[in-house]
Amino acid sequence: MSLVAPVTIQKITGSSLIEVPDLLAVEEPLEIRLGFGPVDDRQQRSVAVTMRTPGHDEELAMGFLFTEGIIHKSTDVISCRHCVQDSAKEGNVMRVELNPDVVVDWSRLTRNTFTSSSCGLCGKTTIDAVMALTPGPIDADFLLEPAVLHALPDRVRETQRAFAYTGGIHAAALFDADGKLLLIREDIGRHNALDKLIGAAFWQNWLPLSQFGIFLSGRIGVELVQKSWMAGVPLLAAVGAPSSLAVQMAQEAGITMAGFVRNERFNLYNKPERVSLQQPLSV
Amino acid sequence: MSLVAPVTIQKITGSSLIEVPDLLAVEEPLEIRLGFGPVDDRQQRSVAVTMRTPGHDEELAMGFLFTEGIIHKSTDVISCRHCVQDSAKEGNVMRVELNPDVVVDWSRLTRNTFTSSSCGLCGKTTIDAVMALTPGPIDADFLLEPAVLHALPDRVRETQRAFAYTGGIHAAALFDADGKLLLIREDIGRHNALDKLIGAAFWQNWLPLSQFGIFLSGRIGVELVQKSWMAGVPLLAAVGAPSSLAVQMAQEAGITMAGFVRNERFNLYNKPERVSLQQPLSV
Repeated sequence: MSLVAPVTIQKITGSSLIEVPDLLAVEEPLEIRLGFGPVDDRQQRSVAVTMRTPGHDEELAMGFLFTEGIIHKSTDVISCRHCVQDSAKEGNVMRVELNPDVVVDWSRLTRNTFTSSSCGLCGKTTIDAVMALTPGPIDADFLLEPAVLHALPDRVRETQRAFAYTGGIHAAALFDADGKLLLIREDIGRHNALDKLIGAAFWQNWLPLSQFGIFLSGRIGVELVQKSWMAGVPLLAAVGAPSSLAVQMAQEAGITMAGFVRNERFNLYNKPERVSLQQPLSV
Repeated sequence: MSLVAPVTIQKITGSSLIEVPDLLAVEEPLEIRLGFGPVDDRQQRSVAVTMRTPGHDEELAMGFLFTEGIIHKSTDVISCRHCVQDSAKEGNVMRVELNPDVVVDWSRLTRNTFTSSSCGLCGKTTIDAVMALTPGPIDADFLLEPAVLHALPDRVRETQRAFAYTGGIHAAALFDADGKLLLIREDIGRHNALDKLIGAAFWQNWLPLSQFGIFLSGRIGVELVQKSWMAGVPLLAAVGAPSSLAVQMAQEAGITMAGFVRNERFNLYNKPERVSLQQPLSV
């Protein structure tokens, strides 16, 4: 399984052309299936298909199932492995056997997202739905120096294997208050990179991640805040901009949020007290 | 309905902080529902929930339904409007009434993506599933000068209302062989921006878009190629990188694909003959 695929391209500068070899970030579909029952009478059901970069598929499946609120602890999972029925096309279906006592809310899963049953869909109902799956706002004591955030983009970029070759792959990284990188995962999809990271932490029983921050190489949408909240992370930092709903959810979740983390600058959108700063200047 | 929302942030440079007003790209959920039957005995079914930037919601719904292969022509749709049952939360549910003779394949819709029924999920099955929904590869006679592509990023950026304020919103633009911009749509989600653009063209009966190119402000994943193929676009250009599967699908679709379109450079990944270039230099 490779993160990158070779290709021949025409490289144009002005109106001149040269033909050169290049590398692309690999994108392939992954289907996640849940299995139930004894081996001789198995039922299974597909819960998601995502376009992802192959690799760390078990972690992606675990992270997805955990951040969607389907599994809660590693003992909820009996096994997680690739389906190999058709050897020519193997590797793109993960089958997860759940412990029989895990109750799955299928009605929510078939919608593939959080939603209400009436005409009352809005940002607040989205946040309330996630709130109901968590133990509440994150109250962790976590403090870091701004220099830790300033250093993250370069440190993560240095360890990103695939980005350097393709220019088109996202990263999610777990770091501690001293700026030490503990885990990094790459994927063509921002959500998948974070699912892989949280799935790895889940599998190692590190959750809740109350003494860690998560760094993202892109923008922060509300679903990335949801996943971080489920994982109990007190601080979320990203190279890109957050959305309005991402900031609202961070406020409800008690998550410190830093955006536009680059070039020795960043913006804080919530709970700045977790970053050790000089007194505010008046504008 | 605003594309941007005000917020107060802490802006950090080094370790100094100032508090300033800022703007965020708005993100809110949108549910798309299909309605059937007479007014006094209506059935409805939810087909998708997407996190989107409000505005052009009818076009988003039309574009989504068209590029998923559910509707094919504007007469398939009787009406498309916001659901206003709960006035406090209105605006986030679109209800689309389909002509009774439209046959909907629910089994595919509940998966919310293209997939197979066996362990045989792979990029090729993904491409084949889309191929089955289209009239085949795009054979349009379309030729443009490289200068048209070089000029696109700045021209689109100038017309993007929300990006300038938030730094966090994607654009999709429709242009002709002379570089004239015909439509531009913005959204926090890349897929939504393209759905809005294609939905607008669909509604105006411009499809297939055989004499136009589409420009995207981000990277090109396979689902964006799928949507463009459904719309019959012969050329897809983007500021970012394409994925491996995006390039594979462009090859099957006969779509000219340009990536990394910026700073007077771009890379061509398929069918370079639609761009009028000097003879290849040997490397």
